[in-house]
Amino acid sequence: MKGFGVHTSMWTMKWDRPGAEAAVAAAEHYRMDFIEIPMLDIDAVDAPHTRALLEKSGLRAVCSLGLPEPVWASVNPEGAIEHLKRAIDKTRDLGGEALSGVTFGGIGERTGASPTEREYDNVARALEAASSYAKTQGLLFGIEPVNRYENHLINTGWQAVRMIERVGSENIFIHLDTYHMNIEEKGAGNGILDAREHLKYIHLSESDRGTPGAGTCDWDEIFATLSAIGFDGGLAMESFINMPPEIAFGLSVWRPVAENFEQVMDNGLPFLRNKAAQYRLITPS
Amino acid sequence: MKGFGVHTSMWTMKWDRPGAEAAVAAAEHYRMDFIEIPMLDIDAVDAPHTRALLEKSGLRAVCSLGLPEPVWASVNPEGAIEHLKRAIDKTRDLGGEALSGVTFGGIGERTGASPTEREYDNVARALEAASSYAKTQGLLFGIEPVNRYENHLINTGWQAVRMIERVGSENIFIHLDTYHMNIEEKGAGNGILDAREHLKYIHLSESDRGTPGAGTCDWDEIFATLSAIGFDGGLAMESFINMPPEIAFGLSVWRPVAENFEQVMDNGLPFLRNKAAQYRLITPS
Amino acid sequence: MKGFGVHTSMWTMKWDRPGAEAAVAAAEHYRMDFIEIPMLDIDAVDAPHTRALLEKSGLRAVCSLGLPEPVWASVNPEGAIEHLKRAIDKTRDLGGEALSGVTFGGIGERTGASPTEREYDNVARALEAASSYAKTQGLLFGIEPVNRYENHLINTGWQAVRMIERVGSENIFIHLDTYHMNIEEKGAGNGILDAREHLKYIHLSESDRGTPGAGTCDWDEIFATLSAIGFDGGLAMESFINMPPEIAFGLSVWRPVAENFEQVMDNGLPFLRNKAAQYRLITPS
Amino acid sequence: MKGFGVHTSMWTMKWDRPGAEAAVAAAEHYRMDFIEIPMLDIDAVDAPHTRALLEKSGLRAVCSLGLPEPVWASVNPEGAIEHLKRAIDKTRDLGGEALSGVTFGGIGERTGASPTEREYDNVARALEAASSYAKTQGLLFGIEPVNRYENHLINTGWQAVRMIERVGSENIFIHLDTYHMNIEEKGAGNGILDAREHLKYIHLSESDRGTPGAGTCDWDEIFATLSAIGFDGGLAMESFINMPPEIAFGLSVWRPVAENFEQVMDNGLPFLRNKAAQYRLITPS
Repeated sequence: MKGFGVHTSMWTMKWDRPGAEAAVAAAEHYRMDFIEIPMLDIDAVDAPHTRALLEKSGLRAVCSLGLPEPVWASVNPEGAIEHLKRAIDKTRDLGGEALSGVTFGGIGERTGASPTEREYDNVARALEAASSYAKTQGLLFGIEPVNRYENHLINTGWQAVRMIERVGSENIFIHLDTYHMNIEEKGAGNGILDAREHLKYIHLSESDRGTPGAGTCDWDEIFATLSAIGFDGGLAMESFINMPPEIAFGLSVWRPVAENFEQVMDNGLPFLRNKAAQYRLITPS
Repeated sequence: MKGFGVHTSMWTMKWDRPGAEAAVAAAEHYRMDFIEIPMLDIDAVDAPHTRALLEKSGLRAVCSLGLPEPVWASVNPEGAIEHLKRAIDKTRDLGGEALSGVTFGGIGERTGASPTEREYDNVARALEAASSYAKTQGLLFGIEPVNRYENHLINTGWQAVRMIERVGSENIFIHLDTYHMNIEEKGAGNGILDAREHLKYIHLSESDRGTPGAGTCDWDEIFATLSAIGFDGGLAMESFINMPPEIAFGLSVWRPVAENFEQVMDNGLPFLRNKAAQYRLITPS
Repeated sequence: MKGFGVHTSMWTMKWDRPGAEAAVAAAEHYRMDFIEIPMLDIDAVDAPHTRALLEKSGLRAVCSLGLPEPVWASVNPEGAIEHLKRAIDKTRDLGGEALSGVTFGGIGERTGASPTEREYDNVARALEAASSYAKTQGLLFGIEPVNRYENHLINTGWQAVRMIERVGSENIFIHLDTYHMNIEEKGAGNGILDAREHLKYIHLSESDRGTPGAGTCDWDEIFATLSAIGFDGGLAMESFINMPPEIAFGLSVWRPVAENFEQVMDNGLPFLRNKAAQYRLITPS
Repeated sequence: MKGFGVHTSMWTMKWDRPGAEAAVAAAEHYRMDFIEIPMLDIDAVDAPHTRALLEKSGLRAVCSLGLPEPVWASVNPEGAIEHLKRAIDKTRDLGGEALSGVTFGGIGERTGASPTEREYDNVARALEAASSYAKTQGLLFGIEPVNRYENHLINTGWQAVRMIERVGSENIFIHLDTYHMNIEEKGAGNGILDAREHLKYIHLSESDRGTPGAGTCDWDEIFATLSAIGFDGGLAMESFINMPPEIAFGLSVWRPVAENFEQVMDNGLPFLRNKAAQYRLITPS
């Protein structure tokens, strides 16, 4: 989790063999340091095949997921633990460095009420078990605050910090996302300020999940703050255009937010790289 | 719908007699030009009582709503028309100038798929009937694009324009909201640029629905663009802190986004007034 | 003065034959619509040679200057008129569309005191004569507000409007510059709002005169406001790296503000084009 | 140099007895933690009188200056040293904590060429002697980068760092100014990032030196970056409206940039305090 990477949703939401091959080739083409692999269907991932692709390309990998409704940690912590362990095993097998994402619940999970202590206790229990297990497998374990509509439990950097303090594990990191920060944080830099002690990974996603640089995110403040805290984790560009039905409701993208993936990569990627270099997070390409 | 106003959710979400009295007194105290009255429960509004309060205070009023699920226009246009007519009658009776809001559907309405032509046809039918009826009653009729999570049908300024073109009515205006624009539009000014021909009302709401000026909305771009198009409609400050259960799910505010209403009014209102004056939308107070 | 152009200081500050050939070739390479030719030394410009280059390339041209100290209009209006007429003749001869820039005074002109009515009277007299003469030659005539350090007479859009009202000519336009606006205007859009009736040309120059997109200018607000006023004049990218001694003092660039011209063109130009397209000032390339 | 202060130019540019009394009373009224005293005329400052005012009010003080032309350090380092020692003595006598400002040269000093090694050597010699002397008197000693028009030697945070490295003193700190940063730095946060190891003081001054919050400075990025580096030095609000003739040329303010001082204090000060609190640099008032 260093350098500049990309969420492979840019090229596939299915991590089967053809999807994996297309995504790795594209990530190499754009000279990425790492990729993020969505682990929506754990069993569909052919770990040795992906490991071989990663080794050949030199790309590093982070896996990510949201929990399926039957195993939401707030109500079924044991189910969540079992699911997360399977995902951790798969991440280990394909040669990944970390499992992250909405590891504490569902994308779209909302009760209609503010979070309860009981929900947070269940979540903490699941995260403690999963992060400890990840450590035994040599992996890091992340939690990603998402906006109020995608989950009611952890929406901000400071809520993620509180959860980590509740869990008490050393092996959990915070994974921010500029798209969610743009909705939830008091200023573009505030989530970074709050999460700084635990921040190891950040999604660089525009305000409408389209082309970075063509939206309302304040990239100058984001990169200045990252640089000022000495951030040296992974910078993962993310955009969602085509959604598989199983996550469309949670993410709620109903129209194309960019003309095509080429626009996102050819306009958005240079924009982000230039900004990251302007604020000295990466050396100019 | 001129000058500087406020959504009365700042003081009450129940427009019964005590709620109305508290809100009108507060709006007078802060020298507002108009108030927005949420018409969540049409029958609970005592129109003559509100009319008397408005006349005494000199405040003008806009009413707003989202449709209840049984009368979502996309699936039940006739039900929607009947509901909207009742709301229009009540708005007329209490002395309001317009009915606006998510008049085309529900706050929280999502099918999990992109909008269909059939849904848009139903919505257009309902809006045509309702806006024509509003005209006969001497009222304007507005539609407010909201973000992808609150409704899947109209999320942006350009989608609202397309709907107005489909409806073909002269009596519909667009009602933007900076909170939703911050998520959906390509830039803070883009929704204003697209909606300009039909734009008569705008919610000034911060990115987290808390205190204006303490969030990620780009107020300079918003006010500069409003001024540049010659906007002379209503500027309505909006913040949501306390949510009644019936709309909490749709709006999804799970934590206090400001310490209290005084903070919103005493920090946010001067901030907005100063910015509006800086860009010549209002004369300095 | 339509579309996207570039100040040729990017490639030469000497508009002799080799300078002109290099600059025109470069502007063609970057698919510019027009170029801005600095007329620092009127006699050194070979008009037929430039005209032939422009005709062959299809590029349009705007000429610009600042007045030499002996003919500053505030103290020597007759000298200024004579100088401006010679520049207008040369602009006409080389096939240009307009003469603009600090046509009202010197780059670096400051008295140490606020402008006087007498100075403004002299300037108005010179501008009236020069703009009328330009009209007889079929040319437009512009004035460019510059920052407080480069001139004490006209620093803002509203001061330029007042001068135009004082002059009373129909043939004068305002030429803004984002670099100067960043210092002088109350907000990035304010100068555009004030100058709108007379605005036909704008320099797109970063806050340090380096690479556009890597500075403090608020490009979103600039482009949103331009789009909102319906701007359809010339957008001229400008960057100053190498300064000839005769203008170094006025412009005061003491260090390289970009690594090289390639960085400015290859990073800055796509940035500006993407932003202009995002706000619909140009169609995407 | 902790907390929130103000440059006393808000109330006086003459630090004689009446000026000092008016400024201290006003600073107390606005609940400032410290004041900055301009030491334009060292001999005119009645040190025991100021010391008594400071002790009674509980205000701390920083003194600041620019060197008069006869003692510009780049050409007359010995003269500069003598002048700075007198200013240091006066600062000590009136109970100040530091001497800062353009201690390395003149406000308005420019040669028309890039700085030379010989100029930097002379400046380094003067700063070494002055900062060492300040240390013996129990004072800190600062250098303030200013924009290209006010001085050609040190315009950016990184140039200030290089000078400190050349001097090799432990007793020098960097004093940034947002007005100058807005012109010279690649982004609002960049000067802070570069200067961070030596940064102890910052002028909060708007882009036109008028009312903070009504200009082009990116205050969110500024405060986010300050917070992210753990800044705990002095935050000094600064605005220039009325200029004495001896510094008008250097500062080049030719028109009122705010309606009056009340506007600056009553609009600008709450804006800055709210932003500083939003990014946790101060606790909310």
